[in-house]
Amino acid sequence: MREFEKNIRKVEPYVPGEQPQKKVIKLNTNENPYPPAPGVLAAMKKLEGHVDSLRLYPDPTSDTLVSALADFYHVGKDQVFVGVGSDDVLSMCFLTFFNSEKPVFFPDITYSFYKVWADLYRIPYECKKVDENFHIIKEDYYPENGGVIFPNPNAPTSIYEDLEFVEDIIRHNQDVIVIVDEAYIDFAGESALSLLDKYDNLIITQTFSKARSMAGMRIGYAIASPLLIKYLNDAKYSFNSYTMNKTSLVYGAEAVKDKEYFAETTRKIVETRDWAEEEFKKLGFVFPKPSANFIFVSHPEYDAKELFEAMKAKGIYVRFWGSERIEQYLRVTIGTREEMEALFAFLREYMM
Amino acid sequence: MREFEKNIRKVEPYVPGEQPQKKVIKLNTNENPYPPAPGVLAAMKKLEGHVDSLRLYPDPTSDTLVSALADFYHVGKDQVFVGVGSDDVLSMCFLTFFNSEKPVFFPDITYSFYKVWADLYRIPYECKKVDENFHIIKEDYYPENGGVIFPNPNAPTSIYEDLEFVEDIIRHNQDVIVIVDEAYIDFAGESALSLLDKYDNLIITQTFSKARSMAGMRIGYAIASPLLIKYLNDAKYSFNSYTMNKTSLVYGAEAVKDKEYFAETTRKIVETRDWAEEEFKKLGFVFPKPSANFIFVSHPEYDAKELFEAMKAKGIYVRFWGSERIEQYLRVTIGTREEMEALFAFLREYMM
Repeated sequence: MREFEKNIRKVEPYVPGEQPQKKVIKLNTNENPYPPAPGVLAAMKKLEGHVDSLRLYPDPTSDTLVSALADFYHVGKDQVFVGVGSDDVLSMCFLTFFNSEKPVFFPDITYSFYKVWADLYRIPYECKKVDENFHIIKEDYYPENGGVIFPNPNAPTSIYEDLEFVEDIIRHNQDVIVIVDEAYIDFAGESALSLLDKYDNLIITQTFSKARSMAGMRIGYAIASPLLIKYLNDAKYSFNSYTMNKTSLVYGAEAVKDKEYFAETTRKIVETRDWAEEEFKKLGFVFPKPSANFIFVSHPEYDAKELFEAMKAKGIYVRFWGSERIEQYLRVTIGTREEMEALFAFLREYMM
Repeated sequence: MREFEKNIRKVEPYVPGEQPQKKVIKLNTNENPYPPAPGVLAAMKKLEGHVDSLRLYPDPTSDTLVSALADFYHVGKDQVFVGVGSDDVLSMCFLTFFNSEKPVFFPDITYSFYKVWADLYRIPYECKKVDENFHIIKEDYYPENGGVIFPNPNAPTSIYEDLEFVEDIIRHNQDVIVIVDEAYIDFAGESALSLLDKYDNLIITQTFSKARSMAGMRIGYAIASPLLIKYLNDAKYSFNSYTMNKTSLVYGAEAVKDKEYFAETTRKIVETRDWAEEEFKKLGFVFPKPSANFIFVSHPEYDAKELFEAMKAKGIYVRFWGSERIEQYLRVTIGTREEMEALFAFLREYMM
């Protein structure tokens, strides 16, 4: 080992999720099966006439995109923060708001990056076990802590908790920042946005990667009180002033403006999910009631890993972790009706 | 103050550099006055036919862009790391490689973000004073340290040190990582790339924001030994798997492929700089020999701040800091010949 290697940061070597090159049925990373809103193509064509503008730094305030989001959600521009995917937004929230000596609380079964950012920024944390049906136990979040974060719907369980439940956790945590990660809320139910007027310690994060069909553009955002957004911007500007490139600002803003397309594609995914639920049931699968664009399934008679591999051999990719408490579960993204038909055709044959 | 504010990270509130909306002569952020390579427009048109692909996560290995860069520099694909601007790349280098208890060394007058990232990641550092002519003193970098970073050419001085000088610093620091930040090298002289075969602890960083005319796309990169690039990727993947959006990968790759356009626009900027040097001299300005796409000027008889404000009032934007040791200096980006003519016309009138 070379001397300089002693001072290299130790990390868990990570292998990115499979991005298969050949034509497959890709139900493994919760992407949207429908293309981005038509306005995005129009924005591309328009930018062609201004290709010269790419030589300039992008607007550091991301005004175009921030304005579009503020309009969509009927909030002030000073209540919106944007970043390079919700990973960037969430990471910046951890860095900005979780600087207590007390542990931050989040569920044990949840988005895997919460732990990573806590470790990265040396933030103490405690994982609260979800119950045997994978539900978050709200009372676990009552004790004193350094902040709270949970997704609603939760991932990878797809479980949505109603607004009363969410508000109960916020009400018990008014001296710390509470982040509700609503990456999948558009497929679920009411957002916690309506609670913003009541709780100035609440942050809601969202993404363009799911309901907005734009995982490829890396856009995420947070909505909160002007005070919290100001703190986020102060932190962001102090480390890296220009993160959102010109195309993400312009294409992103167009994607938000088309409310009808958004409603239509989201409705289609929910319909396909409702139907897929029934199909999975017929085949004997068990799963928590799904409220996101994926279903978290298990089968009493079939080993999850074997099933995962059999599907993969047939070009059907779903997600399998094999980690504690969820060894027998697979996360299946809701694709188009046709993709799901192919999945069920395979399963029927496999289980015969 | 609300209770939760006690745990909010304290940062220096930062005001982003001015991005004036009206038509001005913008010589304040070292952008390239020429548009991106024609291939970028062609890539935009091509992506229109694949707008559907934006619904998918981008390739986490950034293969398209990494391959184009590897070809351009005649290095292996395993020697290239890409990020969201060189700020992202440099920040990731600080995080990955500077984990010693000993201080990292860099010049006192240099890129202002080095200090910011060191503070962010709690890395000890020592700023080494450049001499009275703003030259780096290489002997200052001989004592034991936790790593070394300096730009060549340095910013905002525009001073280039030859390869022998650079190698001397690397030779004295073989047990730590040495980063040579070559954001402006294409306007200067020989790159330290030829030293990579000899020193496996060397990292060279670069950007698309200057000679590549694509500040708006936020693309930066590092070139080093496969071992160091692996460490960088391990760190990056463990915190945020998808940072480069689809457009930056595709447009970026096309920008790199057009070697002629790159050579031609770079040559034009250097020519304009050579001419501007003479013009500044005629007006009595003093400055270190410039080797980047900017000149760091001072005038014995005119106050820098007053001059800065007078220029701004006329719609000519340059950069002024007013900080220690450089209170009397302005950084003037090399624009088109026409823009520079307008600048000198103003100065001649102002100084009459």
